[in-house]
Amino acid sequence: MKMARKIVIIGGGDAGTYTLEAIFKKGAEVLKQFDITLVKKDKGGSASICAVPFALQGVFPMKDVAEIDPPEMFVGHGIDYRAETEATGINVEQSTVSLSTGDELKYDYLVIGTGRKPRIPAIEGADLNGVFTMSTVEDGEKIAAAMNAQDAKNAVVLGCGTIGLQVALAFMKKGLKTTLIAGHPTPLSSSLDPDMGTIVRERLEKEGATFVTGKSVDALKGDGGTVKSVVVEGEGIPADIVVISKGMLPNADLAKDAGIKIGATGGIVTDQFLHVKKGGAYIDNVYAVGDCVEVLDAITLRPRLSQFASSALVQAKVIVNNILGVSYPLEPALSPAIAAIANLQVGSVGITAATAERCGIRVVSGKKDKPTKARFYPGRKSMAVKLLFDAYSERLIGAQIISEEMVADRIDGLCNAIRMGMTAKELSRMEKSFDPCVSLHRDVMIDATEKAVEQLTKGKA
Amino acid sequence: MKMARKIVIIGGGDAGTYTLEAIFKKGAEVLKQFDITLVKKDKGGSASICAVPFALQGVFPMKDVAEIDPPEMFVGHGIDYRAETEATGINVEQSTVSLSTGDELKYDYLVIGTGRKPRIPAIEGADLNGVFTMSTVEDGEKIAAAMNAQDAKNAVVLGCGTIGLQVALAFMKKGLKTTLIAGHPTPLSSSLDPDMGTIVRERLEKEGATFVTGKSVDALKGDGGTVKSVVVEGEGIPADIVVISKGMLPNADLAKDAGIKIGATGGIVTDQFLHVKKGGAYIDNVYAVGDCVEVLDAITLRPRLSQFASSALVQAKVIVNNILGVSYPLEPALSPAIAAIANLQVGSVGITAATAERCGIRVVSGKKDKPTKARFYPGRKSMAVKLLFDAYSERLIGAQIISEEMVADRIDGLCNAIRMGMTAKELSRMEKSFDPCVSLHRDVMIDATEKAVEQLTKGKA
Repeated sequence: MKMARKIVIIGGGDAGTYTLEAIFKKGAEVLKQFDITLVKKDKGGSASICAVPFALQGVFPMKDVAEIDPPEMFVGHGIDYRAETEATGINVEQSTVSLSTGDELKYDYLVIGTGRKPRIPAIEGADLNGVFTMSTVEDGEKIAAAMNAQDAKNAVVLGCGTIGLQVALAFMKKGLKTTLIAGHPTPLSSSLDPDMGTIVRERLEKEGATFVTGKSVDALKGDGGTVKSVVVEGEGIPADIVVISKGMLPNADLAKDAGIKIGATGGIVTDQFLHVKKGGAYIDNVYAVGDCVEVLDAITLRPRLSQFASSALVQAKVIVNNILGVSYPLEPALSPAIAAIANLQVGSVGITAATAERCGIRVVSGKKDKPTKARFYPGRKSMAVKLLFDAYSERLIGAQIISEEMVADRIDGLCNAIRMGMTAKELSRMEKSFDPCVSLHRDVMIDATEKAVEQLTKGKA
Repeated sequence: MKMARKIVIIGGGDAGTYTLEAIFKKGAEVLKQFDITLVKKDKGGSASICAVPFALQGVFPMKDVAEIDPPEMFVGHGIDYRAETEATGINVEQSTVSLSTGDELKYDYLVIGTGRKPRIPAIEGADLNGVFTMSTVEDGEKIAAAMNAQDAKNAVVLGCGTIGLQVALAFMKKGLKTTLIAGHPTPLSSSLDPDMGTIVRERLEKEGATFVTGKSVDALKGDGGTVKSVVVEGEGIPADIVVISKGMLPNADLAKDAGIKIGATGGIVTDQFLHVKKGGAYIDNVYAVGDCVEVLDAITLRPRLSQFASSALVQAKVIVNNILGVSYPLEPALSPAIAAIANLQVGSVGITAATAERCGIRVVSGKKDKPTKARFYPGRKSMAVKLLFDAYSERLIGAQIISEEMVADRIDGLCNAIRMGMTAKELSRMEKSFDPCVSLHRDVMIDATEKAVEQLTKGKA
């Protein structure tokens, strides 16, 4: 009988969990070829971190998302599942991982899924009580306790990314006066152009949010060790709760300490099979997965982060296939994203106009706002679509869609269209299914594309 | 000043209306270069025929869809809009159209959009009172009157296509005992494989429908000139209302009488700019559009009909662009379709397994049924996906999706994927946006694709 090969996975977040699940999916025959250990710092089984802000909003109970699968599920599959166990060192030459428990694990394959950590700007008072970040279930539980406290009246969120907006909405639902503070004038600036971000800002303002933008935060001020206000360019904004939501950094220290190469983004450098790099060479049996990884952007061909559960899912499949000897490369990232914000669905894929400009890509865009269904259909919604095309190749390179419905699948469809190199002309001639109860025959997406085609044609005349 | 060029459009259904609208969309400057006459047999402005079955179901009032735009709208754009006027002859050599009014119109460009007519099988009793077809607003009004009559108790629909099912649902909503009779054991057999059609059949049965399939109809029997029953292989099924819904034929007689070539499907033969053919040559200034046209199927590369409003929409753009001197070819048809049936959305694109077999294409399919959202999300739905790949090229050639939500945009996205030649492997590695309130990270579409990839891989081993 062949010896089972030993896989060690560091991290029990989405990346680690998806890696396990990708192996499970290969079936029992494959699974028993391996002897798998997963170590994770947090307690319990796998959680759905993306769902925590919605639990704060009351969409479902926190306990439903705090443990999606208990350790027993993984143990039942034969996994040596070690919660509350930290990996403290990796020795790539010896193929070993040291643990906080004093144990040392030998591996044939190592998968590093150490995740991310909140970026905390150097602001005075960031360590006061009542100041939180939002990156774990525990964070969510702390924020829930703080916002449910009887004397909580004012909340401030620093940052206008997806998580910041979702947490702000939870505060507003709870009746807290909520202020969002950000450098950029419009929210979600990494995925939405300002004209599209404005739609989201206006919706949040309608929900009662106050935006303070383009100003710098001086300090968080407290009383008896507890936050009381946020000082913005000399002016104090009352705050019983502050959430710092200024983006996430790759949690790559463990890899770095092991001499593994870290990229300019702070993420772990990998090849297209997600092998990590050390001393100028990629290491055959060590992989990195998820939020700690630096990937290649499919449009700019430059390194970037792609800190989405969906990216981890694709990467986990790449790793498991490669361990099994199937050549299955990771494609450069397009990172389609969808975020439920208030009753809006905000979708994006590819690059924004700002990123294009930064990378010297000339963009022609088409934009349109229009209902989703026939005019006689009761309950149709409005949909805003912005499509970005490369002015040279005329290929689609980015899409931004905002509506109360039908956004995610459009973004995913456009992601495939970008991947396949679809041009503005090709997209403008797309056939579109139609039923008056489901869709509109003269679709907003085609209208937006036609606007871009017009401009591209003019550019040639 | 240049003389305005004269366009004559025959038919005021979707095809003719979309042709007008495609010209309007080019702007007032373009519009005033033309002198446009539209003639149509029916009274009034433009209707939404696809919406009539939903009006029967009570989704919106019939009057809302009977006239989407009144003649005045078109007249306001300077169109000579002639309702209740039939074109009785076309003279391609003289570039003239004769009208039922005795007038003769001279044209620079002719657009033939004569639409479709119900296929009525040669059954005894098909001309009895209480027997209807469903292809015009007037038909809808007659059916509405019949089903609202106090003594209406039993309804029979001959045929299980989209319209037949939708009309049957209207009858059931009204409380009529409803029987569907069809040769094929499962509904929507032109767009769904039997395993997927079964889902639709079961849903309709749940709504109270009775299916009688695989049997032949002997006759419709009446009493005093009014239908009373449908006799199926000797057995009488009571019927106060019968709707014959056995498909639609191209209404191409006018073109045929003018010597224009008609194809094997009964539709008008056209080139890729939708020019019609006569005496072996395509005619530069005569176009056909919509349900009366024979198109090329993008997968089988054989002639077919594509009787969808969405097809007419694309074709109208092709014609208007070509009249304006823009080379804008019609791509072979993939005909993505979506139908709202009960609370299901039934979507399809490309070809079915039966069509593939008929055309000698070996198919590998992947199928999966799974929820649309995370397991902790309240109100998630089930979704069934079947994807068909060409076993040789491994490219996607057909998709069938049934769910209560999120079907149309997936079908349209897959339509683009088919168009761009996406293979099973490429599709299985697609990036998928994820938000627990909107989608599922391990999506059913990817699962279905992976099943096909597995089979394709086995096929090579």
